[in-house]
Amino acid sequence: MLRQQVTKRLAACRGLASEVRIVEVGPRDGLQNEKNHVSTGLKVDLVNKLTAAGCDYIEAGAFVSPKAVPRMADSKHVFQQIERSNAVTYAALTPNLKGFETAMEVQADEVAVFTAASEAFNKANIRCSIEESIARFDPVFEAAKPGGVKVRGYVSCIAGCPYQGWVDPAKVREVTQLLLEKGCYEVSLGDTIGVGTPGSIAAVLKEVLETVQPGSIALHLHDTYGQALANILVGLQHGIRTFDASVAGLGGCPYAPGASGNVATEDVVYMLDGLGIKTGISLDELVKVGNFISTELGRMNGSKVGRAVASSCIHE
Amino acid sequence: MLRQQVTKRLAACRGLASEVRIVEVGPRDGLQNEKNHVSTGLKVDLVNKLTAAGCDYIEAGAFVSPKAVPRMADSKHVFQQIERSNAVTYAALTPNLKGFETAMEVQADEVAVFTAASEAFNKANIRCSIEESIARFDPVFEAAKPGGVKVRGYVSCIAGCPYQGWVDPAKVREVTQLLLEKGCYEVSLGDTIGVGTPGSIAAVLKEVLETVQPGSIALHLHDTYGQALANILVGLQHGIRTFDASVAGLGGCPYAPGASGNVATEDVVYMLDGLGIKTGISLDELVKVGNFISTELGRMNGSKVGRAVASSCIHE
Repeated sequence: MLRQQVTKRLAACRGLASEVRIVEVGPRDGLQNEKNHVSTGLKVDLVNKLTAAGCDYIEAGAFVSPKAVPRMADSKHVFQQIERSNAVTYAALTPNLKGFETAMEVQADEVAVFTAASEAFNKANIRCSIEESIARFDPVFEAAKPGGVKVRGYVSCIAGCPYQGWVDPAKVREVTQLLLEKGCYEVSLGDTIGVGTPGSIAAVLKEVLETVQPGSIALHLHDTYGQALANILVGLQHGIRTFDASVAGLGGCPYAPGASGNVATEDVVYMLDGLGIKTGISLDELVKVGNFISTELGRMNGSKVGRAVASSCIHE
Repeated sequence: MLRQQVTKRLAACRGLASEVRIVEVGPRDGLQNEKNHVSTGLKVDLVNKLTAAGCDYIEAGAFVSPKAVPRMADSKHVFQQIERSNAVTYAALTPNLKGFETAMEVQADEVAVFTAASEAFNKANIRCSIEESIARFDPVFEAAKPGGVKVRGYVSCIAGCPYQGWVDPAKVREVTQLLLEKGCYEVSLGDTIGVGTPGSIAAVLKEVLETVQPGSIALHLHDTYGQALANILVGLQHGIRTFDASVAGLGGCPYAPGASGNVATEDVVYMLDGLGIKTGISLDELVKVGNFISTELGRMNGSKVGRAVASSCIHE
């Protein structure tokens, strides 16, 4: 294939990681805002196909209020029905003890908690301050300790907030450190509304990395303004080695109907392949998964790589 | 606006240009493959609106065979009807002396010639070798000299060819040098099918810049695989200061119906604004132009920034 040919001669970009971990969030972050009902069977199929494509970290569901997030109401069944691979971490979002206990019941491998770097965002969404929101996770951290269950943290709105606008990078660093101190092994910095550019993302990373090791940081970038891949490149250049992504770009900005959501995993893997950076994921298989789920959901494939392959740009 | 707020604190990306020239190719490269008829009036409107938005270089048409490129058959009328600004360069593609003479007749400010870095691409498209294709421009270079008309060169397929696959960066350098020696003041390196990644684009730039000054190079990137902005960032990091782009991402890969075409000018300007790099273009006005032309053509706006602004992600 041309792709392999053209990427034979690689990166003059020195000093980048030789291997990167992709956290596939399609089944959770991607589907949680889906307008229409998504069957448990389809979610299970999606997770199984992602496993087969070589994804080694899949956020498969969330144990949250079914009233608040109806699309995740069947996460228990999803976890019970997926075919697991020992090589894969199947994680779940668990904002409280009840959620954590359900996650353990269905043998989630890891859990995740979430807050925002914006006071206005937290107030609008969970009616409490950032500090209070993190204190609410204490029971989860406590419960996770004895069994050594790994807890991942999400910080949203790192590059801008739909309510307060500007978010101070110092606040991002503060919240990140607090989550790490509480017990998170890694904090995923989320540009929830995708407004970040290589300029602002570099500014956030510069600030956070003053006191936090790059190995404890992941980037979770939405592609609302088309900046996600350029921002990931900036992340790589700052030593970040974990990136969240969503197959077919599943998900949307909940504040912007029609706007793009998570960066598409296919587009990220294509770029990383082109840089000679290993992910363990087969792009060809992943593209098939992206086309499968897009067709099933009746939505345009949000991955440009997916669309380009489908329309076969290359005379093979 | 949030955008201004979040980009106040800028780039930790050091050493980038403080100013960049955008070559707006929407009216030519963007429209030349448009499926349906585009009226002269609409083309004129588009160029005028781009002028008003602050674009200072607009490729407004092509003087080529109307049989080969029927959408450009009325370029003469477009040039005659646009309202010109003295601050703007209105350029035309002129592959032969006849085209050059027509361009001069309607007072095009600059002209452009084009070839490819792939022998297979040239053979398939214009049935001659790269060298022969460049020799065909001799009359244009000769005619341009006395009046001091600037000639720009395009080299397509710099990161991959739909026919031969792999393209040797050394070939890109060789063709670029030949065009500069013939009399081009600048050569625009085109990733015509958008397969390049920060890895392969860096490899091409590294090779070309061994013998060519970055000020003589532009990048013309298609976003077929979603890599264009990341590739532009790599270009900036290699000292490139001119980038071609097309409002609303007009244009498509002629070899891939449905696939994305040129990188959208809005997305490029959004990134550059976020890096504190000046273009002279008003993003707000440009977004309006992108929405205008997309609506008129009845196609989805190819700019993510355009779509995000239209769906208003931000609670102002």
